[in-house]
Amino acid sequence: MHEWDADTRVDATGDGRFAAHLGDRWTSAGGRPNGGYLVAFCLRALGEVLPHPDPLAVGAHYLRPGVTGPARVDTEVVRAGRRLSTGQASLTCGDREVLRVVASYADLGDPAGRTVALGRAPELPPPDECVDPYGGLRLPGVTVADRVRLRAPEPFGWAAGRPTGTPRAEFWIGFADGRPADTASLATLVDCAAPAVLELGVADSATVELTVHVRARPGSAWLAARVATRHLAGGYYEEDVELWDATGRLVAQSRQLAVSADR
Amino acid sequence: MHEWDADTRVDATGDGRFAAHLGDRWTSAGGRPNGGYLVAFCLRALGEVLPHPDPLAVGAHYLRPGVTGPARVDTEVVRAGRRLSTGQASLTCGDREVLRVVASYADLGDPAGRTVALGRAPELPPPDECVDPYGGLRLPGVTVADRVRLRAPEPFGWAAGRPTGTPRAEFWIGFADGRPADTASLATLVDCAAPAVLELGVADSATVELTVHVRARPGSAWLAARVATRHLAGGYYEEDVELWDATGRLVAQSRQLAVSADR
Repeated sequence: MHEWDADTRVDATGDGRFAAHLGDRWTSAGGRPNGGYLVAFCLRALGEVLPHPDPLAVGAHYLRPGVTGPARVDTEVVRAGRRLSTGQASLTCGDREVLRVVASYADLGDPAGRTVALGRAPELPPPDECVDPYGGLRLPGVTVADRVRLRAPEPFGWAAGRPTGTPRAEFWIGFADGRPADTASLATLVDCAAPAVLELGVADSATVELTVHVRARPGSAWLAARVATRHLAGGYYEEDVELWDATGRLVAQSRQLAVSADR
Repeated sequence: MHEWDADTRVDATGDGRFAAHLGDRWTSAGGRPNGGYLVAFCLRALGEVLPHPDPLAVGAHYLRPGVTGPARVDTEVVRAGRRLSTGQASLTCGDREVLRVVASYADLGDPAGRTVALGRAPELPPPDECVDPYGGLRLPGVTVADRVRLRAPEPFGWAAGRPTGTPRAEFWIGFADGRPADTASLATLVDCAAPAVLELGVADSATVELTVHVRARPGSAWLAARVATRHLAGGYYEEDVELWDATGRLVAQSRQLAVSADR
């Protein structure tokens, strides 16, 4: 079993509730569980109670920092329709809700509907011709960097001690143990790279809200990521992420709103 | 009283519940209430129960078409913190929930935090030097086009009978009765223009999910909008909207995932 599957396990305890355990292998700065890791528990639980196989539109509101250890997921089937179903999930650590997710699911294996591709995948050399953009740097407490690997043409500016002032990046991303990406794990992957605002010197921030739109089932383990922040205003900033599979197909778009510690 | 305020009124009936009435002056294609109009009821109700003044991050999942007539909003205070508060609201028509919203509120009048502007506002001639981009065209049942006015340098291609194939547009947008935009009404405005995919010939679609990030309090009634769809895949497409005030400040970013009728 791959790391993500083992570490995001949920066990039904009846009435739409699930027992979970937040591990210490997916932490971000400060040793707190990564936001994309927290979402995974809600999506795995919703995947058990909703009739459609693929998360399509996921909205996650972060209420408090997650805490490693035992946790609970409470789910509600909001609507189960023919083409789409919608559910809600709350992740609770101790007696405190840390994350509330509403997600609509669909069947992305169904080939109906028109396709017009106007965007383009990042143009990157193959992963084995790229380098670790962190340059081997590991920020204290950030274990998620050992679970999810990145490959880029060159190191990130901030990781080389020279923040570029331009919070944009393109790189390959994939699970370190080679687990294939699937629609359930895309919401984890979009939040597992170091934030682009490190190029602006913003080191400490917290996610308020993360939306993930899953656009297709990934056809490769390595995914090409395009990350950008365009607006830091009053300490709040958005981070946009696109993930493309190796066949050049967009598989996920995400946007999060985060707040820096100076707010 | 302005139209938006009169037509999105909610009346507390106790225990976080509100009575509402969906009017027929804010309808989209098919004569159904516009999605941004539906969100307004949830935000007005949440504004009554949450301690912070400004919607900051709004996630809305559309479950069924709204129905004009009496409706109900049920709210829940999920968390009320010092800097942020989060609430949930459900809009119900008859006995059917049509919309579920989770929204985080903050005080955007507080000037704390760093600002770095990397994006740029659309460059548009003044509104009075622009034309109605619909060219006077009114699609059947679309009353929202009489509540919210648009001004653009030239008519939309689709409105002139020549879809451009490029689903992008920049234009001024504002309430037709001159009501100033405020943070509560931005989530209505981002969804009130005709969808950019009309330039691809996609005429009939339904919103699955809409996320709105409010970035600042607007300083003008006219707002400059930038709208784009980049990926239509299997009938699903995203629409990104930016709204900028006349001082050149980004006031809202939104993204919706919608599905065309051919899916």
